[in-house]
Amino acid sequence: MPNNDPPISRFPVPDIDSLPEDLREKILAVQEKLGFVPNVFLALAHRPDELRAFMAYHDALMLRENSGLSKGEREMIVVATSGANNCLYCVVAHGAILRIVEKKPLLADQLAVNYLKADITERQSAMLDFAITVCEDSASLVDDDYELLREYGFTDDDIWDIGAIAAFFALSNRIANVASMRPNDEFYSMGRAPRLSVAK
Amino acid sequence: MPNNDPPISRFPVPDIDSLPEDLREKILAVQEKLGFVPNVFLALAHRPDELRAFMAYHDALMLRENSGLSKGEREMIVVATSGANNCLYCVVAHGAILRIVEKKPLLADQLAVNYLKADITERQSAMLDFAITVCEDSASLVDDDYELLREYGFTDDDIWDIGAIAAFFALSNRIANVASMRPNDEFYSMGRAPRLSVAK
Amino acid sequence: MPNNDPPISRFPVPDIDSLPEDLREKILAVQEKLGFVPNVFLALAHRPDELRAFMAYHDALMLRENSGLSKGEREMIVVATSGANNCLYCVVAHGAILRIVEKKPLLADQLAVNYLKADITERQSAMLDFAITVCEDSASLVDDDYELLREYGFTDDDIWDIGAIAAFFALSNRIANVASMRPNDEFYSMGRAPRLSVAK
Amino acid sequence: MPNNDPPISRFPVPDIDSLPEDLREKILAVQEKLGFVPNVFLALAHRPDELRAFMAYHDALMLRENSGLSKGEREMIVVATSGANNCLYCVVAHGAILRIVEKKPLLADQLAVNYLKADITERQSAMLDFAITVCEDSASLVDDDYELLREYGFTDDDIWDIGAIAAFFALSNRIANVASMRPNDEFYSMGRAPRLSVAK
Amino acid sequence: MPNNDPPISRFPVPDIDSLPEDLREKILAVQEKLGFVPNVFLALAHRPDELRAFMAYHDALMLRENSGLSKGEREMIVVATSGANNCLYCVVAHGAILRIVEKKPLLADQLAVNYLKADITERQSAMLDFAITVCEDSASLVDDDYELLREYGFTDDDIWDIGAIAAFFALSNRIANVASMRPNDEFYSMGRAPRLSVAK
Amino acid sequence: MPNNDPPISRFPVPDIDSLPEDLREKILAVQEKLGFVPNVFLALAHRPDELRAFMAYHDALMLRENSGLSKGEREMIVVATSGANNCLYCVVAHGAILRIVEKKPLLADQLAVNYLKADITERQSAMLDFAITVCEDSASLVDDDYELLREYGFTDDDIWDIGAIAAFFALSNRIANVASMRPNDEFYSMGRAPRLSVAK
Repeated sequence: MPNNDPPISRFPVPDIDSLPEDLREKILAVQEKLGFVPNVFLALAHRPDELRAFMAYHDALMLRENSGLSKGEREMIVVATSGANNCLYCVVAHGAILRIVEKKPLLADQLAVNYLKADITERQSAMLDFAITVCEDSASLVDDDYELLREYGFTDDDIWDIGAIAAFFALSNRIANVASMRPNDEFYSMGRAPRLSVAK
Repeated sequence: MPNNDPPISRFPVPDIDSLPEDLREKILAVQEKLGFVPNVFLALAHRPDELRAFMAYHDALMLRENSGLSKGEREMIVVATSGANNCLYCVVAHGAILRIVEKKPLLADQLAVNYLKADITERQSAMLDFAITVCEDSASLVDDDYELLREYGFTDDDIWDIGAIAAFFALSNRIANVASMRPNDEFYSMGRAPRLSVAK
Repeated sequence: MPNNDPPISRFPVPDIDSLPEDLREKILAVQEKLGFVPNVFLALAHRPDELRAFMAYHDALMLRENSGLSKGEREMIVVATSGANNCLYCVVAHGAILRIVEKKPLLADQLAVNYLKADITERQSAMLDFAITVCEDSASLVDDDYELLREYGFTDDDIWDIGAIAAFFALSNRIANVASMRPNDEFYSMGRAPRLSVAK
Repeated sequence: MPNNDPPISRFPVPDIDSLPEDLREKILAVQEKLGFVPNVFLALAHRPDELRAFMAYHDALMLRENSGLSKGEREMIVVATSGANNCLYCVVAHGAILRIVEKKPLLADQLAVNYLKADITERQSAMLDFAITVCEDSASLVDDDYELLREYGFTDDDIWDIGAIAAFFALSNRIANVASMRPNDEFYSMGRAPRLSVAK
Repeated sequence: MPNNDPPISRFPVPDIDSLPEDLREKILAVQEKLGFVPNVFLALAHRPDELRAFMAYHDALMLRENSGLSKGEREMIVVATSGANNCLYCVVAHGAILRIVEKKPLLADQLAVNYLKADITERQSAMLDFAITVCEDSASLVDDDYELLREYGFTDDDIWDIGAIAAFFALSNRIANVASMRPNDEFYSMGRAPRLSVAK
Repeated sequence: MPNNDPPISRFPVPDIDSLPEDLREKILAVQEKLGFVPNVFLALAHRPDELRAFMAYHDALMLRENSGLSKGEREMIVVATSGANNCLYCVVAHGAILRIVEKKPLLADQLAVNYLKADITERQSAMLDFAITVCEDSASLVDDDYELLREYGFTDDDIWDIGAIAAFFALSNRIANVASMRPNDEFYSMGRAPRLSVAK
């Protein structure tokens, strides 16, 4: 990247080549798959132990097999709560992932602005009600909040997933805001193509 | 439009053909220029007098000649305050206009999520500080808020523009939220193309 | 007016004689009826196009014939939401109108401070619950909010009126707060006389 | 009072004749001076010990001799903080007292809606800034808040007065809101007369 | 006390010996019973009339005989609302009293942080819901709030107690925060002993 | 533990013996050192991958060597932000650790209720100002917030620590609130002993 690009973090950003082997390999694998290195890896890399724990926690929740929540539903939680936290990095990066996973080019923008107006099911709306409460006022949770989710068929394991994902991005959003982490330009337009062709 | 499209408003949406001549002509003129009719016109059309006043007020502010604010800066105010009000219609529709006017495909998403992280000048950031205060707590305005804008070279006329645009979209956002006004699908992707090519 | 009166706006206030004919005539007609010129006309007059649109929008909502809301009920919405927005001009000016229209000298002060303690019907209280939600958090509106109004007999047309009036005064309150618009002294005591005689 | 008057409290209201002698005498003395019995005395009278303490605390602050705050300034604190707490009884009753004490018929309405727009001195505005902080977020007070008051010439004794009055009406407003205490009709129009004559 | 102790108030603290006889006797009686003089007495003593009213009001509510609320329940209201108001003095001092009265060493810390997680009955939780509403937004109280308490068997007299105690500590918390009143070190550990032995 | 103990989580709590070897060993090591197993390990153990990542992230921040923040200062951040988030588990558990690390029996209660009244240095207060902003409104951070910390001598590395610890406990507090995680009784009284002896 040329030097006059806007900085991707308020904090030091190490060269990929200077990173510990395990991190370098993981990051290069992502780069190969995606075509670029998401800035979150670079912005956290000056703290290898934290980056490892961050990736491990992220993957444990977001790549978890046998979750009762679809991958798209998990990304919905990320985008809606990151919108509520006004986290530019997570809204833009996970908005791209959500568009691709769900093959719905409008969904991420809808969820980031107001999930109550998004093209989702009533069950998904209940899921996001709970996630937003975790995001904004987790201390207020009472039995009724859990009961409501169970009425929509969510199991205890699903409820844990909803809560834990909202909690993990409470961390993630704050790290990104503290670092003024800049989303890669590529994310903004990923997954919008289907709509472009429709619009023609 | 086919019948199984999601509704564009909670309230009745009249046929364009059934509208008073002056409104029909204006709407068709927009359609010719843009390729589609923005849903806001259709959602307000069941109240012709209100739609006329809405368009007149909008144009008086947003198309005003000799304003000290550029057209792009005025749209920045719209997108940032509509984001703060969680108004899906205005974020998406005016986000599209802003991308096109400023030829900056990333700007609208940045402003809608957190204007403090957007690629704007310090002067524009001061402009948005004031606009957000008008949006969220106009009763708290004191001399210092105006003085700060003057230090950035804003005239009284500019300050009125900032305040009046934030005020007009306080109305607009609430109408759109009350009506659950749906943004046209076309808006979501308008003005993003330049970035796609850059990203390659 | 003598020069040492407190200013009625932070922005320029033109002479009525210097205004475009249509505005001058309208303002003089109000003056003849009321005995004085409400400051809102003077404070907006430096922007004739905006003043015209403002008056047109106001009249479309507040003077609308065949509305399911009485004129008094519409003013209740204005006073309650303007109180919530801490807008001195609108509380005082529309408080006066409300007292006169409803012939209830206490009602405006009650609504401006806390509509839950006002001498109104349960139906009017439901109307104000909705209006205050539009005023303070329009993005949170969901089906239940509309259903509740329908249970009280409000039609869709009535609900639009409630929402649109709350939305218009979201604009109006912000303009007044940005301009530090000063209510005419006359408004404060208008419509209080009946109570004075009762109190004896 | 006739039976179809609206209730003045959600709780029992004893007959004045049934009250302990000391309270009955005090209340009758107020009635003689004012022409009616303020409802606060009646609404608290079912708890004689609390009423005695309430009156003693009120008088210690509001009738304190040698205070650096004028009687009018103390009532300004009451009206501004009671407005912030949306307490109908205190806004209306103390608004009347303030109009009479200060001989300014507009001041109470201004302070109840937004003290930043009221016809007061800069020093009084600083006094109310502090009082509103005590009212709304007393835990946030830091040295700078006190220092600012000292720059306006307030002594430690004055600062205690400001804080203690705001604190006492934090109690008073809550008691009135819990009881849905109804202001006497007489209060609404008291002290407005001068303005009526001026307005002619 | 040695001079380098942290101050117990931002305001003057008189010698006990210099106080009016009635106050000195009361304070010495407390000291004899408790082993030390709670700082609240010393911090208010520079205003004897206010201290007398404060003590009278406190005792009327907290020592009231025949209340439907147990002494422990009244202290629960104090600790929970003082926690919500972030009042260090009242949380620490009344936390100590609560631990001793209820013989439950954990309860005060639970209530101060989040009463929804405390070891209390459902009925006590409803009592605290109401108290917290009085504390944070008394203007929002409506019939349903009272009805709910009645369903749990609370009488009107009990409801007054809940409201009045929350209201009195709204005052008390603000006085303590304005004065930066320091809790006596002794309070922090009082009533924790049983748990210490259990923990072994 | 007997069966009638209150549950430590809303979710399943596995037997330590049933856990993967690495986790069982870590947990038994903590038990040996502390005398009991902190409930957080048990409450997270039904998700071994998440527990591993949680511990790794925690240790990377809280046990980090060469940090510019002392261990006590890091715990101050935990207690103050957990208090702001009303998280009972973290306030009580980390309050105990803080008392022991700093050998100050009062500090944890002070920070949990209101860090502005705590016995800390001005520098530590600035550290907590920043941490609380990260906790409550990380999107609002601007250059001035960082500049202020630098004026107190905090390096970029220190600022990352402050931000990352506040961010990690944003996660931790939410997990604990979602699970209604119960602090071990032992934590409440740990580290208070020195004060007990002093108080005698």
